[in-house]
Amino acid sequence: MEAAQTTLDPFARGFASDNFAAVHPRVMERILAYNHGHARAYGDDTVTAAARAAFNRLFGREVTSHFVWNGTGANVTALSAFAKSYGAILCTDVAHLCNDESTAPERLLGMRLLPLASRQGKLEPEALAAVLSRGHGVHGALPVALTLTQPTELGTVYTVAELRALVDMAHGHGLGVHVDGARLGCAVAKLGVSVREMLVETGVDALSFGGTKHGLLAGEAVVYLKPGLGHEFPYVQKHAMQLASKMRFLAAQFEALLEDDLWVENGRRANQAAQMLYQAVRPLPFVKVAFPVEANTVFTTLPKPLWQALQAQTFFWPWDERLDLVRWMCAFDTQPQDITEFVGALTGLARKLGMTNSNAT
Amino acid sequence: MEAAQTTLDPFARGFASDNFAAVHPRVMERILAYNHGHARAYGDDTVTAAARAAFNRLFGREVTSHFVWNGTGANVTALSAFAKSYGAILCTDVAHLCNDESTAPERLLGMRLLPLASRQGKLEPEALAAVLSRGHGVHGALPVALTLTQPTELGTVYTVAELRALVDMAHGHGLGVHVDGARLGCAVAKLGVSVREMLVETGVDALSFGGTKHGLLAGEAVVYLKPGLGHEFPYVQKHAMQLASKMRFLAAQFEALLEDDLWVENGRRANQAAQMLYQAVRPLPFVKVAFPVEANTVFTTLPKPLWQALQAQTFFWPWDERLDLVRWMCAFDTQPQDITEFVGALTGLARKLGMTNSNAT
Amino acid sequence: MEAAQTTLDPFARGFASDNFAAVHPRVMERILAYNHGHARAYGDDTVTAAARAAFNRLFGREVTSHFVWNGTGANVTALSAFAKSYGAILCTDVAHLCNDESTAPERLLGMRLLPLASRQGKLEPEALAAVLSRGHGVHGALPVALTLTQPTELGTVYTVAELRALVDMAHGHGLGVHVDGARLGCAVAKLGVSVREMLVETGVDALSFGGTKHGLLAGEAVVYLKPGLGHEFPYVQKHAMQLASKMRFLAAQFEALLEDDLWVENGRRANQAAQMLYQAVRPLPFVKVAFPVEANTVFTTLPKPLWQALQAQTFFWPWDERLDLVRWMCAFDTQPQDITEFVGALTGLARKLGMTNSNAT
Amino acid sequence: MEAAQTTLDPFARGFASDNFAAVHPRVMERILAYNHGHARAYGDDTVTAAARAAFNRLFGREVTSHFVWNGTGANVTALSAFAKSYGAILCTDVAHLCNDESTAPERLLGMRLLPLASRQGKLEPEALAAVLSRGHGVHGALPVALTLTQPTELGTVYTVAELRALVDMAHGHGLGVHVDGARLGCAVAKLGVSVREMLVETGVDALSFGGTKHGLLAGEAVVYLKPGLGHEFPYVQKHAMQLASKMRFLAAQFEALLEDDLWVENGRRANQAAQMLYQAVRPLPFVKVAFPVEANTVFTTLPKPLWQALQAQTFFWPWDERLDLVRWMCAFDTQPQDITEFVGALTGLARKLGMTNSNAT
Repeated sequence: MEAAQTTLDPFARGFASDNFAAVHPRVMERILAYNHGHARAYGDDTVTAAARAAFNRLFGREVTSHFVWNGTGANVTALSAFAKSYGAILCTDVAHLCNDESTAPERLLGMRLLPLASRQGKLEPEALAAVLSRGHGVHGALPVALTLTQPTELGTVYTVAELRALVDMAHGHGLGVHVDGARLGCAVAKLGVSVREMLVETGVDALSFGGTKHGLLAGEAVVYLKPGLGHEFPYVQKHAMQLASKMRFLAAQFEALLEDDLWVENGRRANQAAQMLYQAVRPLPFVKVAFPVEANTVFTTLPKPLWQALQAQTFFWPWDERLDLVRWMCAFDTQPQDITEFVGALTGLARKLGMTNSNAT
Repeated sequence: MEAAQTTLDPFARGFASDNFAAVHPRVMERILAYNHGHARAYGDDTVTAAARAAFNRLFGREVTSHFVWNGTGANVTALSAFAKSYGAILCTDVAHLCNDESTAPERLLGMRLLPLASRQGKLEPEALAAVLSRGHGVHGALPVALTLTQPTELGTVYTVAELRALVDMAHGHGLGVHVDGARLGCAVAKLGVSVREMLVETGVDALSFGGTKHGLLAGEAVVYLKPGLGHEFPYVQKHAMQLASKMRFLAAQFEALLEDDLWVENGRRANQAAQMLYQAVRPLPFVKVAFPVEANTVFTTLPKPLWQALQAQTFFWPWDERLDLVRWMCAFDTQPQDITEFVGALTGLARKLGMTNSNAT
Repeated sequence: MEAAQTTLDPFARGFASDNFAAVHPRVMERILAYNHGHARAYGDDTVTAAARAAFNRLFGREVTSHFVWNGTGANVTALSAFAKSYGAILCTDVAHLCNDESTAPERLLGMRLLPLASRQGKLEPEALAAVLSRGHGVHGALPVALTLTQPTELGTVYTVAELRALVDMAHGHGLGVHVDGARLGCAVAKLGVSVREMLVETGVDALSFGGTKHGLLAGEAVVYLKPGLGHEFPYVQKHAMQLASKMRFLAAQFEALLEDDLWVENGRRANQAAQMLYQAVRPLPFVKVAFPVEANTVFTTLPKPLWQALQAQTFFWPWDERLDLVRWMCAFDTQPQDITEFVGALTGLARKLGMTNSNAT
Repeated sequence: MEAAQTTLDPFARGFASDNFAAVHPRVMERILAYNHGHARAYGDDTVTAAARAAFNRLFGREVTSHFVWNGTGANVTALSAFAKSYGAILCTDVAHLCNDESTAPERLLGMRLLPLASRQGKLEPEALAAVLSRGHGVHGALPVALTLTQPTELGTVYTVAELRALVDMAHGHGLGVHVDGARLGCAVAKLGVSVREMLVETGVDALSFGGTKHGLLAGEAVVYLKPGLGHEFPYVQKHAMQLASKMRFLAAQFEALLEDDLWVENGRRANQAAQMLYQAVRPLPFVKVAFPVEANTVFTTLPKPLWQALQAQTFFWPWDERLDLVRWMCAFDTQPQDITEFVGALTGLARKLGMTNSNAT
């Protein structure tokens, strides 16, 4: 093997995002295991069939599963099953679909996104009720689907009861329900319930099952839980430019991810790292944790000079600069030492900026 | 390493498509070499920078290069630089963009495709001249770009002079020119000219640089050769759902593919296999080669019972069933033994069907 | 009444298009009759209800009828009932939808148009059969509807039997069938059959019922003949920007147009004018009539200097300059004197250009 | 003239909307004046040229003006000049574009609408500043244009200074600015400034100039005030299905509307009616006027039984049922008697419902 030409960023593992992480070894090994000979393209191969069977076992029923490139691709194509050209998709005002996927929903689906009020990342039931009770005939965009993110973009987790109540309300008005599960393993690990209980028994219709953030090289799964839904998906996938020719290599990753619940295990590791980070920063007088830490993310507010100095050492995203609200996200491969070093850098900078003395308890 | 759960298709290497092939070892090794630590997502990493520098070296100038998921994604996003909502893209009537990419061009670009007459896969200059001379004001879709495939979908290769003439005609009417180079290495190997001479000096504006069919796991490059073009591409890539978060793993593959011209080497190997196949089948009385074999594909017509029996043994695509026209495509990893076995199976079946005696020379 | 400020083009009535004509007096009177008081907007008014009832009487059954602004609007919104985002609409290669409506079909419907071979303006059944027999899975655009123009863009008229055969073939493959009847009155007048026999009994699903070219100020009707179809149309109409607020004035025109079959009467007048023109020019040695004159249009080829000189006197559209093929179209208000003057100008110019002596019989 | 077949709604003139009104007599007369002979279609006629010249005179410079069918058509096509496929259009949360034009913006433009906080219908400058200061790279939809409604959907009117400040802020961030002037005459009449001062000198780039609500049968004008903008509009208009063939009849209406400032006169009449209505209802103890009455609309809150009973007598739209907020809109043809009768009905019902005694002053 030839030596790689390029050096990676020196700071090994930071807290910017779980998509900064590498590929989990068991996933990479499975890719290698299938890298020989020829296989039918576009999903007509034995590996894809095996990965689909694994999804059927996971959900305890025959589901319709397809493997696409990335999270935006998964969300937008999954929602296509509910699309009407004059329709609207309801989401929260912090939804990744709305804030971080450019105009992909409008381009592919041609529909409106209607962002609704949220609280700690979770959709406010009252906001949903209000928009569903409003009728505007042909003049407004017609709500056709609701999408929820589990865990939410703010690192909180809907309880099963919360999910069921929102699904029921949406179904009661004829809307389909989709869950963006880019980090679904974190939610399953947090709640300690099976994915069947969380999503099938609550009546969710369609799911983006996250892969990349749980350790894949690339790949997300679109899973239709409701029987009959998604029968047109192969056409949708193709025209959405989300159909891989060498599909065996996407499927291989999911085969590995579902084996022995590696995805839940990876979610649990990321959650545990976030808890460790949370415990380390919550006593600091110059840091204020913004939301309950229920998954793999810690949101905090802290003085601008401090977070900017820290960000210069180890990159992370400010969530809202005006509020000095920043996001620290843990990955499946975050190590205790990473957290120790990060918190060490934080407290060191705070000391240098003269913050610890005046504010310390 | 755990043993893989699934068995691949038994017939190792066939002639269905070069996207049935696996990943080239040097490409896979490069992926592994970068699989450690964290790296910035979405292309802000050192590996992506290195792969872009390699493209600059290849084309002998600063070009704008981006890495996307697949061929449809590359073609459609590359063409976005020329998009007008009331516009039309000119292509041949055998163009992959037109016949094999569903309605992706219409969905993302919102534009019309205008297929023009071709001969042996190459655009007829007269057909281009005719459509360019036709003015229909606001009523017709306005031609804004021309896309050519090199090598063509029928396995032929435009000469440099042919390319230049078509580019000049298109530029003379204000159109941009894009080349779909899904198998570009085959064309470079065939013509024995540099890609600079073939594409830069002829004035091509934008290029889909093929990766998957030259041995990648997944990934194509969009390259804007014309300075200034493509400055909006990062936005386009995002909203087209073609932006990988763990971009280093796409970039790594291109770094390996461009190193020591592996892409041309892989194209040459596929071409040589096609030549060997061509030499083996051309003397057969029941086979008629349909087009010049200039790249990695052999198109033939042969009796329906024969190709159907052969197809049942080793899958390949009929190109036009009504004409009994089939396509046999070689990959970078096609081996002499594969060809010998395939031709052996063909002649064996012909004998069994009683074809050889009556028709043999 | 104040005097108008502007002088219209001096040449009163020419042969450029039937949309150069004015508004039929009975239509204008009906507009005036309703121009008082307030009426509910967007079609919830009594005039719209009355016009819909008139369509029910015309077709001998309950149909779904809506009034839109123009022909492109009617065709594109009518076809929306069959839309799939990965779908294709089959039409002829001379279809107005394809050649004269810009990219409206792609923009609103997001679909592909697949133009098929035609003969004298009529779809070749073999071309339809060929495209329907071709399967390409998810890779090609999936045919979902067939649209036919009656009378055709070349002034010919499908017989009832021809229509039935094409509809049956399309239905046999699960496609919906739409008829673009921008000049439907001409076809009804030519065939001497009822519109029920022509369209309902042959199984046509959806219709663009032409108004503007039969004497309206503006307005076309979208009529779904197949029960159940078009129940989403009000939403489609709104988001397609084809919903008039003061709908009573569109509906009023249709009420007048359907009364005493004014639309057929206007079609008959235009046909008769075309026959008179045809009889006048067919003996001329320098004019060659290109297609059967079955509706209100005469296509001819004649020497370029001649048609260009004539066009300078009285505007008409060249259909294909390379073939010296021009189109002369009659309107409901074309008068015998208009034809006499036009043919007089034509023969006068031919004499001046020295054409009559050498070529005369 | 034949008698009309249909009876209009009995209640002559109500307060539902100014698009329930009929056509102004001077407008209708101008239509009739041009209803003879043939004229070039699609805007190549002398009437269209004359109407464009009238717009040039109105704005005191060469502007680009085109005539389209309706308000949604005008807004969406006007905004196309700023369109980027990954872009966002900023508007208020009460914008007609956002709440009353279905998904037309998404379908034709493919872009996102970003509704911002408003106060009494006017955009909050702070909300605009906030969204403009937020950068999200390629991940969010990129703001490309701001649209403001003058007068606003809540019947208030931006001052010239307010407009200028918002335009400057938008321009400072590279955005184009569009004004939805569906009832622009009301704003001009209210402010007593010229449209040049209000829109040209403040730097507005593009305008939807309202026709229907100021007395036309149908028709709105798209006017590009900024030189150079809108040169592609004819193509846009065509593919947006907003191009009339018998254009002279749209242009004729604008010729009449601009003559002697009929549009301002009609706006003034509607404003005056609203003032009369406002003066009549403000003393009523059971009615609360919700917003300043600056144009032709009175918004009030009143007890649900009361407004529902009144609505049953004479239709109007509830604006927000949960707030018991209703909209009463006056038209250019609203008569003092209409107001007297309406207020009489209101007070009569209030008395019947026992409201006046307990609440009267």
